[in-house]
Amino acid sequence: MKLTIPKNELATKLSMVSKVVPAKAVKAILQGILFKVSDGVLTISATDLETGFVTEIREFTTDGEGAFVVEGKVADEVVRSLPGSEIVIEYDGISATFSSQKSRFTLPTMDPKEFPEFSPDVNGEEFVLSTTQVETMLDRSMFAAAKDEIMRNLNVVLWEFDSDYLRFVAADGFRLALAESANPYNFVGSFLLSLNSMKDFASSVRMASSDELLLRFDGRRVGFSFDGTQMIVRVVDAEFPNYKTVLPQEFRTRIVVEKNTFIEALKRVSIAARLGSETVKLEVGDEVMKVSARSSDRGEAVEEIEVKKDGEDMIIGFNPRFLLEACQHVDTENVELNFKDSNGPVQINPVDVEGYLYIVMPVRLV
Amino acid sequence: MKLTIPKNELATKLSMVSKVVPAKAVKAILQGILFKVSDGVLTISATDLETGFVTEIREFTTDGEGAFVVEGKVADEVVRSLPGSEIVIEYDGISATFSSQKSRFTLPTMDPKEFPEFSPDVNGEEFVLSTTQVETMLDRSMFAAAKDEIMRNLNVVLWEFDSDYLRFVAADGFRLALAESANPYNFVGSFLLSLNSMKDFASSVRMASSDELLLRFDGRRVGFSFDGTQMIVRVVDAEFPNYKTVLPQEFRTRIVVEKNTFIEALKRVSIAARLGSETVKLEVGDEVMKVSARSSDRGEAVEEIEVKKDGEDMIIGFNPRFLLEACQHVDTENVELNFKDSNGPVQINPVDVEGYLYIVMPVRLV
Repeated sequence: MKLTIPKNELATKLSMVSKVVPAKAVKAILQGILFKVSDGVLTISATDLETGFVTEIREFTTDGEGAFVVEGKVADEVVRSLPGSEIVIEYDGISATFSSQKSRFTLPTMDPKEFPEFSPDVNGEEFVLSTTQVETMLDRSMFAAAKDEIMRNLNVVLWEFDSDYLRFVAADGFRLALAESANPYNFVGSFLLSLNSMKDFASSVRMASSDELLLRFDGRRVGFSFDGTQMIVRVVDAEFPNYKTVLPQEFRTRIVVEKNTFIEALKRVSIAARLGSETVKLEVGDEVMKVSARSSDRGEAVEEIEVKKDGEDMIIGFNPRFLLEACQHVDTENVELNFKDSNGPVQINPVDVEGYLYIVMPVRLV
Repeated sequence: MKLTIPKNELATKLSMVSKVVPAKAVKAILQGILFKVSDGVLTISATDLETGFVTEIREFTTDGEGAFVVEGKVADEVVRSLPGSEIVIEYDGISATFSSQKSRFTLPTMDPKEFPEFSPDVNGEEFVLSTTQVETMLDRSMFAAAKDEIMRNLNVVLWEFDSDYLRFVAADGFRLALAESANPYNFVGSFLLSLNSMKDFASSVRMASSDELLLRFDGRRVGFSFDGTQMIVRVVDAEFPNYKTVLPQEFRTRIVVEKNTFIEALKRVSIAARLGSETVKLEVGDEVMKVSARSSDRGEAVEEIEVKKDGEDMIIGFNPRFLLEACQHVDTENVELNFKDSNGPVQINPVDVEGYLYIVMPVRLV
């Protein structure tokens, strides 16, 4: 079998699917990518048994049909490195030769029958979302998920469809991010998708040319379809905490501060916080908020920032990184901080815009 | 004491001298930077006991004289992070406060009397070099030095002044780089300077505004002066191998190849070399050189490149990284490879340009 494929298309698709190929695996076949030509379509598939990709290439020429498996990360690197605008792949039953101009790579192949089966068919709920809306909501939420895979129920993004809203929620025990939009989908339910799968998803849909994202859900798996690509993600079987109990219902103090001024001050104060207890102290007064951090023996930083305040004065401590990351995900020029009391969480949100908010738990000041 | 200093000048000088401050040290004072105001000049000093910097700032205002030591890496980060164009430093005998606009850092100080003494006075040979020439020669040579500090006599750059030439030589046992220029300095001799000190030197002189580099050498230490900065480097007390025995005297085969074509081919073939024995095979024929690498079970890469050849055909193996790094340091469009025989080193040099060359030892083909 001899295929001729435009290089850019092949490189883009390979780099997308090879992301799920594990760097190490018990069996060589688990590091493979399946190339299959059938009915005039080339499909390229990869899976880590949790997440799978099947993507199509239609713009290519071939002299026949067939299938082979090659090492995924190597094929990805080979295709990216080849010169020219077209790549020829020749499969002789034993090896696959990728060539272009005067460059040639020959890769051993594995038996496609041993490639882990995963069906891209997900039968159940099915509806079309806006790709850009999902991207925006993911960007606003997933940074707050627990990074540690051991924390199975927090190393996820919660997708929650209730009667009014579609909500993405991520939390790591110290902070929480929530993004929401109207739910017109006639589906009520929720599922957890792993942070890794959401990162792969986000970097894959970024290249999508259409804004239509087909979502299918059968209770165990979620299928996303966009641009000739299907991504199948196994739902994480764990219980997400009842996040609604964390959302403060009323506030004693509300301040509005210029976002970039606050971000720059937090970055500077973080220098001193890092030398000590990783804590920044906020002292909210009538028109000024003092932002400070100190280490007992290595130095102290103090910033004064203008604020607009409603409510009581407040002295409270936080991990500066959590405040920073929340503010960096606010799109408006000013940011609103809502305090319940000096032992309670702060809610950070944009000013006069609905749709997302961040909760950060305080730390005790010493 | 209260100083007012332009921020850019202070940040540039601090980032230069703080490079030698060790990240960890047995005593806190060894992580310090000395600020000293005397006779209307602010000097900033740092040393790791092998290399020392003393740099002057003249454009500043002060209300007195004095000296203090603060933690170097912290002061560097603080000054870079401060907003505005001017920084005020107030020293009260206990701590130093760095402030600008509404930002303020207070750092504890250490006793300047405990700061390690190192004299910037080096009395002996003294002559003026061209900064850009030294920079160019260093760039052409130091990448080949051994990276491992344990290899004391190769983790260096050899500065060799003979009756005709100034030569920089660096080698790691597998390859060698040599850069030379005329020696008009009336000094014959040589010394070894550590790779680390040469990296610090290269990044420091990059900012120099004048092309005059004063070099002083007293047998134990080398002093470089440029732009109000003195860098003092202790000479490495070790024996550099007699590199002249490695330089091939005659060649059986000489080829000329387009440099970027060869570099791109080597990069691609390196993908396959990395999977196997890190070896690239060169097969030099009349008009074509085959460049290939293979792993016994994970794939093979083959490239064909046009060459101009004088002499015999040749089959020889190398570590592709060493060929790559040598070619990447050749300035001409074409590069010349000179082979002695299939067990001997290759000499890589620019075409029709004198002044630098690279030697790479072969590896056995399996």
